[in-house]
Amino acid sequence: MKRVKLTVAYDGTKYCGWQVQPNGITIEEVLNKELTKLLKEEIKVTGASRTDAGVHANGNVAVFITSARIPAEKISFALNQGLPEDVRIQKSEEVPMDFHPRRCVSEKTYEYRIYNHTFPMPCNRFNTYFIHASLEIEKMQKAADHLVGMHDFKSFCSTKTHVTDTIRTVKDIQITKEDRMIRIRVIGNGFLYNMVRIIVGTLLLAGHGQIEPDDVKTILEKRDRSFAGPTAPAKGLTLVQIRY
Amino acid sequence: MKRVKLTVAYDGTKYCGWQVQPNGITIEEVLNKELTKLLKEEIKVTGASRTDAGVHANGNVAVFITSARIPAEKISFALNQGLPEDVRIQKSEEVPMDFHPRRCVSEKTYEYRIYNHTFPMPCNRFNTYFIHASLEIEKMQKAADHLVGMHDFKSFCSTKTHVTDTIRTVKDIQITKEDRMIRIRVIGNGFLYNMVRIIVGTLLLAGHGQIEPDDVKTILEKRDRSFAGPTAPAKGLTLVQIRY
Repeated sequence: MKRVKLTVAYDGTKYCGWQVQPNGITIEEVLNKELTKLLKEEIKVTGASRTDAGVHANGNVAVFITSARIPAEKISFALNQGLPEDVRIQKSEEVPMDFHPRRCVSEKTYEYRIYNHTFPMPCNRFNTYFIHASLEIEKMQKAADHLVGMHDFKSFCSTKTHVTDTIRTVKDIQITKEDRMIRIRVIGNGFLYNMVRIIVGTLLLAGHGQIEPDDVKTILEKRDRSFAGPTAPAKGLTLVQIRY
Repeated sequence: MKRVKLTVAYDGTKYCGWQVQPNGITIEEVLNKELTKLLKEEIKVTGASRTDAGVHANGNVAVFITSARIPAEKISFALNQGLPEDVRIQKSEEVPMDFHPRRCVSEKTYEYRIYNHTFPMPCNRFNTYFIHASLEIEKMQKAADHLVGMHDFKSFCSTKTHVTDTIRTVKDIQITKEDRMIRIRVIGNGFLYNMVRIIVGTLLLAGHGQIEPDDVKTILEKRDRSFAGPTAPAKGLTLVQIRY
């Protein structure tokens, strides 16, 4: 018996998110099916981040236990043969039996991409949010700076969840613009449901001048979802990496 | 009557290239159809670069004459309403009646993208060529330097064409690597059929150590397609811009 950790990349465009659900195909389901076929025993993976429908990943993490004799490092090669081309294992490795992808402390990096120009660019339409109106990056960064640190992020959490502890630590938010592409990198050890997308939606209000950067302090204090900005579209978001 | 220049971006994945042809849909055909519908007169565009099936563009150029009264700058907005989401006009402007997108002197920039790692990254699979084996960038750049300048590029031209003048000037070839992404930028005022893709295929031979960088001099001198490397896959190539 061994415990195997997979680093999983996917184009989330055609998937109903990570977690198995009745109404559509998910990443978790595709992995379970292919692993079960490959290892000839029923496999159910445990994921680190339950990404939403349409969200992408360069390095989500899934863990499972197997009694199969194939070396852990070889599983990536064998598994990629059977997976659809929008899901690719980047690495497979053996981990201690007590390793849990959500309970072990980790640092997650998300990137949200915005293409800011008069017209969309077709080649990036599946993983970038297009915005026509001009955005003030400096104001967005100032607004973001208020979110860095340990805070109660209840205002930045979807009301569709019943989590009671809404305190999280955001380690860093960096906003860069290169040509017409804006990248918002958010690093933290854990995020609430829709938290990164609501943060982006709120930073966009600041970028459009609809709120002042300092208003973000008030939004945090309100502890009420209705004070934050809209949830930015899923397709702009990528889970870049998870470090343990 | 006025002459209008369109700057056209497209994801070439689903298209049989630029030029109208009997066996599949092309960019030229999509533009002709939508322009004819919009301007209520038959429009046939003249393109600057007849990109191959699967090749992308951020800024190809198409020109046409119309008697419609809509201002040239407004055509981009109206046209984008009807175009499929994998084709987007970036700009429309009036140009002198004698402007011809192929006969007027221009500088074209192509970019070829290669993702060089153990496994492919799903989100870039439509516009990037995946190569597993490691590549020596320095050798590729040395090989590329031999191609810069005015040369007879007959060895770097598909045999499927009957062009007799195969002398072209390559202004610059720059190869950069950032993380796992290699970008080959090729700038010139004109290219032969498949020329950029054959250049990339030949540079890859140097990167893999299958030829020495200096062998490129001999390949040029041979004036024979069979001495150059294979034609690199279309999906890695993007026509970035054309400047007049």
